[in-house]
Amino acid sequence: MPGGAPSITAVLHAPREIHLEERHEPDPGPGEVQVRVRATGLCGSDLHYYLHGRNGNFAMRSPLVLGHESSGDVLAVGAGVVQVKPGDRVAIEAGVPCKKCEYCKEGRYNLCKGMQFRSSAKVYPHFDGLLRQVVNHPADMVYKIPDSMSYHVAALLEPFSVSLHALRRAMPLPGSTSFVYGAGAVGLLTAALCKYYGASRVIIADIDDGRLEFAVKNGYADEKFLVPMGKYRAGPEAIEEGQEVVSQIVQLSGADGFDVTWECTGVETSVQKAIATTKAGGKAVFIGMGTPVQTFPLGAATLREVDVIGVFRYANTYPAAIRIANSGRLPDLSKLVTHTFNLQESTKAFETARTAKDTRGALVVKVMVESRTM
Amino acid sequence: MPGGAPSITAVLHAPREIHLEERHEPDPGPGEVQVRVRATGLCGSDLHYYLHGRNGNFAMRSPLVLGHESSGDVLAVGAGVVQVKPGDRVAIEAGVPCKKCEYCKEGRYNLCKGMQFRSSAKVYPHFDGLLRQVVNHPADMVYKIPDSMSYHVAALLEPFSVSLHALRRAMPLPGSTSFVYGAGAVGLLTAALCKYYGASRVIIADIDDGRLEFAVKNGYADEKFLVPMGKYRAGPEAIEEGQEVVSQIVQLSGADGFDVTWECTGVETSVQKAIATTKAGGKAVFIGMGTPVQTFPLGAATLREVDVIGVFRYANTYPAAIRIANSGRLPDLSKLVTHTFNLQESTKAFETARTAKDTRGALVVKVMVESRTM
Amino acid sequence: MPGGAPSITAVLHAPREIHLEERHEPDPGPGEVQVRVRATGLCGSDLHYYLHGRNGNFAMRSPLVLGHESSGDVLAVGAGVVQVKPGDRVAIEAGVPCKKCEYCKEGRYNLCKGMQFRSSAKVYPHFDGLLRQVVNHPADMVYKIPDSMSYHVAALLEPFSVSLHALRRAMPLPGSTSFVYGAGAVGLLTAALCKYYGASRVIIADIDDGRLEFAVKNGYADEKFLVPMGKYRAGPEAIEEGQEVVSQIVQLSGADGFDVTWECTGVETSVQKAIATTKAGGKAVFIGMGTPVQTFPLGAATLREVDVIGVFRYANTYPAAIRIANSGRLPDLSKLVTHTFNLQESTKAFETARTAKDTRGALVVKVMVESRTM
Amino acid sequence: MPGGAPSITAVLHAPREIHLEERHEPDPGPGEVQVRVRATGLCGSDLHYYLHGRNGNFAMRSPLVLGHESSGDVLAVGAGVVQVKPGDRVAIEAGVPCKKCEYCKEGRYNLCKGMQFRSSAKVYPHFDGLLRQVVNHPADMVYKIPDSMSYHVAALLEPFSVSLHALRRAMPLPGSTSFVYGAGAVGLLTAALCKYYGASRVIIADIDDGRLEFAVKNGYADEKFLVPMGKYRAGPEAIEEGQEVVSQIVQLSGADGFDVTWECTGVETSVQKAIATTKAGGKAVFIGMGTPVQTFPLGAATLREVDVIGVFRYANTYPAAIRIANSGRLPDLSKLVTHTFNLQESTKAFETARTAKDTRGALVVKVMVESRTM
Repeated sequence: MPGGAPSITAVLHAPREIHLEERHEPDPGPGEVQVRVRATGLCGSDLHYYLHGRNGNFAMRSPLVLGHESSGDVLAVGAGVVQVKPGDRVAIEAGVPCKKCEYCKEGRYNLCKGMQFRSSAKVYPHFDGLLRQVVNHPADMVYKIPDSMSYHVAALLEPFSVSLHALRRAMPLPGSTSFVYGAGAVGLLTAALCKYYGASRVIIADIDDGRLEFAVKNGYADEKFLVPMGKYRAGPEAIEEGQEVVSQIVQLSGADGFDVTWECTGVETSVQKAIATTKAGGKAVFIGMGTPVQTFPLGAATLREVDVIGVFRYANTYPAAIRIANSGRLPDLSKLVTHTFNLQESTKAFETARTAKDTRGALVVKVMVESRTM
Repeated sequence: MPGGAPSITAVLHAPREIHLEERHEPDPGPGEVQVRVRATGLCGSDLHYYLHGRNGNFAMRSPLVLGHESSGDVLAVGAGVVQVKPGDRVAIEAGVPCKKCEYCKEGRYNLCKGMQFRSSAKVYPHFDGLLRQVVNHPADMVYKIPDSMSYHVAALLEPFSVSLHALRRAMPLPGSTSFVYGAGAVGLLTAALCKYYGASRVIIADIDDGRLEFAVKNGYADEKFLVPMGKYRAGPEAIEEGQEVVSQIVQLSGADGFDVTWECTGVETSVQKAIATTKAGGKAVFIGMGTPVQTFPLGAATLREVDVIGVFRYANTYPAAIRIANSGRLPDLSKLVTHTFNLQESTKAFETARTAKDTRGALVVKVMVESRTM
Repeated sequence: MPGGAPSITAVLHAPREIHLEERHEPDPGPGEVQVRVRATGLCGSDLHYYLHGRNGNFAMRSPLVLGHESSGDVLAVGAGVVQVKPGDRVAIEAGVPCKKCEYCKEGRYNLCKGMQFRSSAKVYPHFDGLLRQVVNHPADMVYKIPDSMSYHVAALLEPFSVSLHALRRAMPLPGSTSFVYGAGAVGLLTAALCKYYGASRVIIADIDDGRLEFAVKNGYADEKFLVPMGKYRAGPEAIEEGQEVVSQIVQLSGADGFDVTWECTGVETSVQKAIATTKAGGKAVFIGMGTPVQTFPLGAATLREVDVIGVFRYANTYPAAIRIANSGRLPDLSKLVTHTFNLQESTKAFETARTAKDTRGALVVKVMVESRTM
Repeated sequence: MPGGAPSITAVLHAPREIHLEERHEPDPGPGEVQVRVRATGLCGSDLHYYLHGRNGNFAMRSPLVLGHESSGDVLAVGAGVVQVKPGDRVAIEAGVPCKKCEYCKEGRYNLCKGMQFRSSAKVYPHFDGLLRQVVNHPADMVYKIPDSMSYHVAALLEPFSVSLHALRRAMPLPGSTSFVYGAGAVGLLTAALCKYYGASRVIIADIDDGRLEFAVKNGYADEKFLVPMGKYRAGPEAIEEGQEVVSQIVQLSGADGFDVTWECTGVETSVQKAIATTKAGGKAVFIGMGTPVQTFPLGAATLREVDVIGVFRYANTYPAAIRIANSGRLPDLSKLVTHTFNLQESTKAFETARTAKDTRGALVVKVMVESRTM
């Protein structure tokens, strides 16, 4: 009989083939905590692995545990741990940086080339994710959450961190205007953070009016803009075709564009519009991952001094994210969790996450997997 | 009979001696607008002139019109004016920069040495202020306000600009903590802006609990801290004596101090505490004007990399200030106006402004002078 | 006989058709200076007008005087001018901003939509350039130069300003590495400024080894890199084809790319390489104007947090540019002037400027037009 | 017989009482390197311990090894070390941060409260310094130096890092002017870095003309300014007395002060002058440690928006410092080492370091202790 804490784990063996296995987590080592995972949100990258066995360039080479948006309870702590104690409720930051390279030492550890990020197949052996009951993790990469914060919201701090990192990279001036492309989870969180950061006006755009309704009704954005589906999905023709919509958006701005635009879809037509609807001297921020090589209106950015700013994950966001999420001045983040499943239903969870609307026609924003029983 | 628009004007001839005079404002020149002043707030510097005939180093050398926190209606525009039109309701930015020096060209026109600032005796002939009915002013230094904004709030945009400029200089990171020393008009506006800028927690301090109650009840700050009057008002003894209060404030921070402290009193004991209660690596912002030469805990700032940041007036704040004040996400600014007088009652207005509590014991925060009739 | 100062002027009437005309410049108005132009450098945009009667979207609608890189002597000053006096030798900043819009007031006047820029056909009536003997210009837009600075170097402060503005936008950290694409005048000035800004290593690239030799021999860059001409000039195939060169450049960096890359050609293959050879977390700066819509490796920028920063002209550069050019710590800028003509030879000057090598095979970098006699 | 590498060590037992002891350094642990120390510079804080057994608030509680400015050769590496290999010549960064607190994770590890800094008595047991032959140190806190860099210069990278950190905190704009107070080692390095950072003009001040001569002759600064000794050493009287010198310095600036002033003495009269001689909108940087509580012209800073910026040690400086020191564009740093002693002569080294001039009247700038034989 193996030692360590038993931990039912959802393991992806092949596309759309998840097995539940009982694994065992050893005692936490020095500087580690052992966490009983309670909730894990499903992310677009998880979904890529689930559906295709790969995410962009990174293909699974052995069974992989998905999940990197998680919260839970501290079960035990290893030697030298002072940050948290057993019984603390925590959010888990899923990446483990090397702490020794220049990026890490300079505080930009999201760019660390030795980063181990849970649920990613980039390194081999893969660094397993959090769709399981128990995990050992570095103590300085888990964060005590307030009693008033739910496990759901604590798990959402991961995509929230992506948005917060984007806001920090762009540093929009309070009193400025923002336009957000895409009303999925990250677009909604970005819009809400724009308001929290003091944007005087935040407009969100999508091709699905249901998502837009959700955004405005729940206070994530001030106004909505429905983008019509065009005939062209890419290339110079798409730019041509998009001119009219661009004009409408620019007119909405009351200036020659918005101070900051936030692209959260990765879709080429949206990328093109983001540049064209940013004010001269403004910033266009790219959060969505899309086609790596695109037809891009470079001159419209450079000649108007529109900075093009991308984001890759996040660094040093959790402490502030917890304070912000707990400030009472954000819309209710738990509204983003539209569907919840138990760990044993992981397959069902992924099958729901892959759709924009569930079988009853209800909007799917964020699917949460709970690990309810030991 | 002189030409130009008749304009009843409150003119200070000597300390506490205001005469009402009918002056005439000529037609607006090229690039100028003629404004019918509606409301003017009284500021601490106005009060210094009223009481002593001087403000710091600047002494009146001839009769002076006070007032530089004003709003009104555009009566007429000079040649080439496109920014506003007759009938527009506007806030007036009281300073007129030279536009030709390096500071102006670089956008820091508050530091312009050729700046003409209304109601200041710094230059001679003095540049008269706005306690009057009609004024000609450069068109690009007045700003159209929304219909929903009152003349009172529009006048308050001037002290609001001071706070906004301070926020912009310090750029507190959203999710950080702020501690504000002083709950007068500028302290209250600064606290409210800290919240608007995304501070997760804003505490305001004062020696008067009435002001603190006002601040928390009206949503300008999250929490209050009553500072006890000490025996020493200055010097190293004051630092020694203040240690216990400093410890209490630091403990409140939950860290080794607040991310940003905002000093809005100018009082030496408060300056000393501001440094000591700022977190290592944080910022201490000095908005209040106080004793020019002080006993100062320099080592506590420099060795902990606490940046000491001062502010002098403001630049480029009005457009954003209008958007922020109109965003619906600030506390009701009009609450700051505790007392209102007509232009003809200017003396009474100043006599009220010089007290912390009025004759009925009510708090005096901001005294507004209205010019109600033509 | 008309009043004003007689001023022989080179006027472009149609592509490659310059007439010398005697015009008359009136007395300088208030705030203006009258300058005897001494030297004017020819710029790429001048050349476009000369050859095609247009520059990008801006077509000549009436005869146009070209030239906006100039220096000269102050002949007379208008009322109220204090910045300079007759006899002063000056550099002329060719743009005249409106000074009233938000961009101007905030110090980013290069983005002013009301900007009048000499020799540009953007506005109509066109704002004539400086290929003439005498011009009236706002006094705060000319800058006294030191006795030791030649008219040539003073004229070069204009393209130097473009580079300086790029450096200020990117703010490379001293001790970092830079790679410059393009060894024309702006590429050379950018490389020299990178060294002045403290780059520990500056490499310049071009397809012409003669330009590279010039760059290294004269101390503008530390090292050179010869880029081979590829088969593809644009599109995804060009990216594919460029991989090997990219690998070589990245290897040169000693890291995973250069801290900052500076694109000074506008050529699509170079734009693509600039992104790919910038270090994760670095900056790619676009100074060259190229094809407005391109095939662009957006993912390689955004997912590695490479900021894409464009520049449009410059603002507030002249005072620092004069101090830097006069510091003795730059390579000899006058070396950039490879060819000099008299104003009367303007056509010959343009015909030389349009070639990379002159008729004797010598490198053409900057062509200067002198106005030698009155 | 004890295991480990024998290491002759200079141990301070009481003020001015150094014993040479043979200690043994164990094998390097995982992530550690074992370094044969070659050169160690003596710093002002070392000297305080040597003379008084304490440095400010930190008193020795047991024998202490001094020295934290060192270079050497890698003898052996522990498990997992990839940064360096035996035989590499390295500079040693003397501080070992915790890597787990917010300051460390954000890249400001100089503010880490768990920092262990060699030769400091702040923690107990004390963290011994580098006046010895052999030391084990974290591998990511030593840095390979180029073959062309001497051990002396590599040891000087420590005070150089202090200056570099100051430059990074203040970020002077290239083309701006700098004034440095104090021509000791840190003042000289700061002046040299100001030039490297592109200051168009750097003036250094001291009360000793010998030091100033050294500075200008060796290219550390462009110009010198001899400060007369005043009658008052502190207090408001010193400010009064210093007015004339302040006026002279301001006049030197050609403006209303220098863009950045750098205070490297810690002397109150110099602190006061630094504020008064900084341009409105400029920065005053405090590198020298002086009297913690001072008479300070706060109003002259805050009302003119002169930022007061302190520095405490450094973070992330070594890689850039090596590149800068090796760029060939700095004055010869080895000139700073005016006196060299062997490890066995440590007492003599300290007795020399405590004087401004040695027994033959030669200037003492930096005293270096070499460990020549095993």
